[in-house]
Amino acid sequence: MLNEKNVNLGKVRSCIRELYEYASKRKAEIGAENVFDFSIGNPSVPAPPEVLTALEDLVKNTNPVVLHGYTSAQGGYGVRKVLADYINRRFETRLDADCLYMTCGAAASLTITLNALVNRGDQVITFAPYFPEYKVFCEHAGAKLVAVQSEEKTFRIDFDKFEKALNVKTKAVIINSPNNPSGVVYGAETIRRLAETLTAFSEKRGSPVYLISDEPYRELVFDDGTEVPYVMNYYAHSLVCYSYSKSLSLPGERIGYIAVNNAMDEYKDVYAGICGAGRALGYVCAPALFQKLIERVYDKTSDINVYKFNRDKLCSALESYGFTVVKPDGAFYLFVKSPEADAAAFAERAKKYEILFVPGDDFGCKGYVRVAYCVAPETIGRALPAFEALAKSYNL
Amino acid sequence: MLNEKNVNLGKVRSCIRELYEYASKRKAEIGAENVFDFSIGNPSVPAPPEVLTALEDLVKNTNPVVLHGYTSAQGGYGVRKVLADYINRRFETRLDADCLYMTCGAAASLTITLNALVNRGDQVITFAPYFPEYKVFCEHAGAKLVAVQSEEKTFRIDFDKFEKALNVKTKAVIINSPNNPSGVVYGAETIRRLAETLTAFSEKRGSPVYLISDEPYRELVFDDGTEVPYVMNYYAHSLVCYSYSKSLSLPGERIGYIAVNNAMDEYKDVYAGICGAGRALGYVCAPALFQKLIERVYDKTSDINVYKFNRDKLCSALESYGFTVVKPDGAFYLFVKSPEADAAAFAERAKKYEILFVPGDDFGCKGYVRVAYCVAPETIGRALPAFEALAKSYNL
Repeated sequence: MLNEKNVNLGKVRSCIRELYEYASKRKAEIGAENVFDFSIGNPSVPAPPEVLTALEDLVKNTNPVVLHGYTSAQGGYGVRKVLADYINRRFETRLDADCLYMTCGAAASLTITLNALVNRGDQVITFAPYFPEYKVFCEHAGAKLVAVQSEEKTFRIDFDKFEKALNVKTKAVIINSPNNPSGVVYGAETIRRLAETLTAFSEKRGSPVYLISDEPYRELVFDDGTEVPYVMNYYAHSLVCYSYSKSLSLPGERIGYIAVNNAMDEYKDVYAGICGAGRALGYVCAPALFQKLIERVYDKTSDINVYKFNRDKLCSALESYGFTVVKPDGAFYLFVKSPEADAAAFAERAKKYEILFVPGDDFGCKGYVRVAYCVAPETIGRALPAFEALAKSYNL
Repeated sequence: MLNEKNVNLGKVRSCIRELYEYASKRKAEIGAENVFDFSIGNPSVPAPPEVLTALEDLVKNTNPVVLHGYTSAQGGYGVRKVLADYINRRFETRLDADCLYMTCGAAASLTITLNALVNRGDQVITFAPYFPEYKVFCEHAGAKLVAVQSEEKTFRIDFDKFEKALNVKTKAVIINSPNNPSGVVYGAETIRRLAETLTAFSEKRGSPVYLISDEPYRELVFDDGTEVPYVMNYYAHSLVCYSYSKSLSLPGERIGYIAVNNAMDEYKDVYAGICGAGRALGYVCAPALFQKLIERVYDKTSDINVYKFNRDKLCSALESYGFTVVKPDGAFYLFVKSPEADAAAFAERAKKYEILFVPGDDFGCKGYVRVAYCVAPETIGRALPAFEALAKSYNL
């Protein structure tokens, strides 16, 4: 007998990946410009020019044996030092290179962190709606994911529900702000209250709950005054899982990091657990060329104005057609209320208009769909009549 | 409590990685040219010129959104089709693109394959000496690694011992030819007998034992007439785990693949298990730029003449100093008999002569050390007097 759990996981695929395959097929059939594909968080904005220049220079002017050789398992010292210094300047932390562990992107950051922290039977709390792979990652690590529903409409943390979910088995809490799929950003007040709640609970229980901040969308906030607090400034038992997939538009290259807060006494053990977990999962080192690239372009960001433009245009158009939307503070997803109770049926009907988006059910939140608006602005323009016709089909 | 198993794994590190860190430090202290570092399989031969040209061209002339974007989880169709066709031409198989799954290198190929095949309590057999991370990978997947000692001196499979090791719990067998660390290559006769043994046992038991062929060193054979048989031509329930780390000198870039033999009835389930395991371990897709690179340079190999030169020079010199060596057919490792019972003590004494190599104990084979001769030929030349002095210190 094969490993049935993984066989089933491979057969089902994630709903997002499923739709990605459907989109590829449909685009081949009727032309890419006629498919309004809002299914996946694949950035439409190119990597910033500094990335392309640095890549060319690295490939052209570095000894290939060094450029493509193994690095230390935790990543080259150079890039880790540069990142620790950068985080310290930006967020007033006191990290050093040995707090940083380079990874193959956000998913690897999370699986490695979870396999470092949890034991079989532990629980990990997150807040719905949430990225559906959290469940897969937790279960592989031997833990159960407990999803606490967020407040209605605002999608902020419902602290009453959260406090009830904390128990003797709770090993960690994952937050994702800016959030995929709702676009919500947790402000300083939320993070402070979260830290207080965790501190009080950990003290009472006599063992820490770890706070894992999944931050691939950190740089994608659109409005003046929207700030994404740094969890390490609020809570000692915290880790940051970062990825350059969205900030530098390099999702296929799989490059990111884990930062371990050295304000907690046991941070060296946590870091060792990360090194061990990375080894056990088969991550020998993060891609070497892209480690060296990040060492040069760590503070650059793709042009996010496109996403802001898309957000504003899509939000106002959809509202004018009668849809109810949650205006996102960041990331590049729009959470839209389904006009019928069954969001999957809504997503299926949208397919008839060549609009592809993902039902919220997979994100642990029924009655909504996720529209990934990280597309070319022209796509938004061409898609609007289709959205309008979809609204009319519901008599909105 | 953290995950103690992974914390300990992270603290201990692999012996190879440990020595790698020591080497870096020592080189900084006394100059790289004065450290004779034979500790790690980091190719000294640069990637072939076609790799560098193709990389430059891809970076310069491809739309970065496409170049660096997500691919399908199993890898882009283009590279998988090219590889299936190439394997078919070379080995007379009948694979199609959906037999191939692109990975972040050999370690990922193995962890994903193991997590697809095994259930908790299963056993996986390999032949000592073996790459020590096999144990780590198997245990993370929930299986026990059973190491069957190879025949003395030749390091070929001891079939009597192997047949005794097969039991109701045996889910898979891992072979690694050319072998790390012994350099032995299994010929057609060995593979045929292995296939016959597995077929007979599987039929008797009523369930298949899978054969996993770990092939990062396939292209590294030095002598006319040395051939590395393709397991799929001998055994239906087989998978090939491949990596371009050594063949294209790209070890830091983490690019390889798994090929599933479609001659077995359940190959689609096995493939689904691989897709599911890849997802659960956090491998979203193999690095996109390097997938596109492989699509262009899949049939190229680094200049392996350097390794042949090193092997011949090192073997004859070490023998002339009185050491006993197993002359390798392939890969770039030399297994040397320790002049004292304790190979770790031998490796420690060698450090005093600034020679770094790894005790065979970690490879499940006491009394030997592994000398990775994938170094610059000049290093061999400079190291010989140190080896001679080391031999003299033992009065060889």
